Amino acid sequence: MFKLNEDYLALRGSYLFSTIAKKVAKYKEENPDRTVISLGIGDVTRPLTPTILKALHTAVDEMGNEATFRGYAPDLGYEFLRKAIAENDYKKRGCDIDKDEIFVSDGAKSDSGNIQEIFSGDNVIAVSDPVYPVYVDTNVMAGRTGKFDEKTGQWSRVVYMPCTLENGFCPQIPSKPCDIIYICSPNNPTGTALKKDELQKWVDFANEKKAVIIFDAAYEAYISDPEVPHSIYECRGARTCAIELRSFSKNAGFTGVRLGFTVVPKDLKDGNGTELHSLWARRHGTKFNGAPYIQQRAGEAVYSPEGQREIAGLVSYYMDNAKTILKGLKEAGYSAFGGENAPYIWLKTPEGMSSWDFFDLLLERANVVGTPGSGFGPSGEGYFRLTAFGTKDNTVEAVSRIKGI
Amino acid sequence: MFKLNEDYLALRGSYLFSTIAKKVAKYKEENPDRTVISLGIGDVTRPLTPTILKALHTAVDEMGNEATFRGYAPDLGYEFLRKAIAENDYKKRGCDIDKDEIFVSDGAKSDSGNIQEIFSGDNVIAVSDPVYPVYVDTNVMAGRTGKFDEKTGQWSRVVYMPCTLENGFCPQIPSKPCDIIYICSPNNPTGTALKKDELQKWVDFANEKKAVIIFDAAYEAYISDPEVPHSIYECRGARTCAIELRSFSKNAGFTGVRLGFTVVPKDLKDGNGTELHSLWARRHGTKFNGAPYIQQRAGEAVYSPEGQREIAGLVSYYMDNAKTILKGLKEAGYSAFGGENAPYIWLKTPEGMSSWDFFDLLLERANVVGTPGSGFGPSGEGYFRLTAFGTKDNTVEAVSRIKGI
Repeated sequence: MFKLNEDYLALRGSYLFSTIAKKVAKYKEENPDRTVISLGIGDVTRPLTPTILKALHTAVDEMGNEATFRGYAPDLGYEFLRKAIAENDYKKRGCDIDKDEIFVSDGAKSDSGNIQEIFSGDNVIAVSDPVYPVYVDTNVMAGRTGKFDEKTGQWSRVVYMPCTLENGFCPQIPSKPCDIIYICSPNNPTGTALKKDELQKWVDFANEKKAVIIFDAAYEAYISDPEVPHSIYECRGARTCAIELRSFSKNAGFTGVRLGFTVVPKDLKDGNGTELHSLWARRHGTKFNGAPYIQQRAGEAVYSPEGQREIAGLVSYYMDNAKTILKGLKEAGYSAFGGENAPYIWLKTPEGMSSWDFFDLLLERANVVGTPGSGFGPSGEGYFRLTAFGTKDNTVEAVSRIKGI
Repeated sequence: MFKLNEDYLALRGSYLFSTIAKKVAKYKEENPDRTVISLGIGDVTRPLTPTILKALHTAVDEMGNEATFRGYAPDLGYEFLRKAIAENDYKKRGCDIDKDEIFVSDGAKSDSGNIQEIFSGDNVIAVSDPVYPVYVDTNVMAGRTGKFDEKTGQWSRVVYMPCTLENGFCPQIPSKPCDIIYICSPNNPTGTALKKDELQKWVDFANEKKAVIIFDAAYEAYISDPEVPHSIYECRGARTCAIELRSFSKNAGFTGVRLGFTVVPKDLKDGNGTELHSLWARRHGTKFNGAPYIQQRAGEAVYSPEGQREIAGLVSYYMDNAKTILKGLKEAGYSAFGGENAPYIWLKTPEGMSSWDFFDLLLERANVVGTPGSGFGPSGEGYFRLTAFGTKDNTVEAVSRIKGI
């Protein structure tokens, strides 16, 4: 008789954004006359830009021609894309990353969920609190997190690094031992970005303790502060302790296109000298069959001079929204953070309301959807996330409605 | 200090097709004047058909327009595609499968590798031997397979179901207990397809023993025998014991496009009444972010009347190749099987040669690449797989070269 994976059954409720989607669907069904604006899930709204569209059309045409048709992609991704990434995202910033250390994938969500698989089941993870829920959830599914405590909202074998108003929403080096450290910078949901000297401390700590850092840089395109690194490999010694996750979703608007990549330097080895690169390659080769050719050509186009100009335009559009939200919230008397190096605004709920109560209030009174901070970790309770990814009109309207509550 | 997943380290060598690719690359480098023809990996060669191309172009245009741009796809896949699948692949064959029981993915390889995750680590798997290596490899990576025996080439906790000349390459119901049964029909690599009464025995057995069948139907489009079911749900009782994996790779030529789906009926429950559907939904929602919109539109186009006519043309093209290979091999004195309900030809190596020796012989003497049978399981030793997915010209040329050895 087959049995199910008990670790799956231990998961708390459903995935945050699925829960929100269901609540919103129910509200819309019951209130068909209301126009609900979502500044909730971090999904972009601007269409793909001309250079990307051209690359997609050209690649589709190639797939219709026997001479240029492409079947299975190489395991790691096409060299044309890996070269463009190595050159533009790394060499240009002085980072020593080779094209063969880059693994092209269908997106950073898959990679951030799957990367834990190559580590031992008894390794202890450390996470910023609050943070993108996929890190903890996928470790729960792997049985790595111990027992859940209903009172604290914490898993017994997870080291939480509270990011609070008091520490400027920056994770502090933990005193408890940990093996795998997830850092997201610029952070989702707080919008906080670590400066180079702060990130360097993490790299030094990981090298000293032989821990590994999973560095999620999905929002690097939104960094405006020159002191904030775009890649962890801008720090000395990161090649021996860090894996970096990257996405095309937020810079080029690929949330529905699906493309991302993960960097695993060949200098990153365990205590026995085994390269993590070889394990990740094995996973990629066994459980994944490559990102689509047409998507990889679209990714290549992102790095062309025209592509770079166009995506800078997208980022600037969304960051104007961030300014609108920040300004509006402050005018309405809210305490709000982030929004300067990230497309996320992190606000304190008024009068000590719980995150989910504020979610309901905003949905019902302003018909605006945001994300409850508690969904990102226990220290997110009492906070709320708004994203800058809406259209300009919707963002202006949403802010005006929030001010009207 | 972090540690690596010891189960990954237990894997044998590298993934079969990666090894072949490396051997071929080396041969080509050393023999730049030779034209190597691959009838090895099951990768298609015909370009995408007009209706698919049109759907892709239209969808790309939609992504360039603010009003029709699509971001993250729904977790299970777009309803337009799930409806087309439910209607065409299931209702038309009398199978009771609802659109909400279908999970759209980036391909059957990912699904066939990931599906084991929702089961307990101590469940015992049963596999046809030989079979697609991903089933066993991904269970090794999950620590479910026990110890490897160098002598037998078997894992101690895997129930092997030898598919040999004596049993017509059909898996026989095992006497040892097992919880998860992988069945691939039409089978990769032997090309054998189970008839409805044979498959019904498996369904009855699984229901009786409360085992689950993972039914891989990636090659169903190649079935010509009316007694062979295209879906396991054509059998009575399959809704309570079977998960079905499907692919667009081999029928519509999507190996480089990436699209597939998995069916998990809501009647499939464990001993405690927990729906497997809810666990797979949770995995999909947590570790995957949906198949790309443009790919899902291409999948929808496969089910249009023109799409169906065009893909029938692709299948017929490849099956003509299968006939060419079968005929040629028999004329050259080989014992060859399959190729009637599947795009694979399974041949006995001459004079008791090992599968890899025959691989080297074929590569060096005929410059033809095939796949060593032993790569699919211990009972594949002494056999060799050729695929019908080459171009017509290459297939004719390859057969002529093999005859010339």
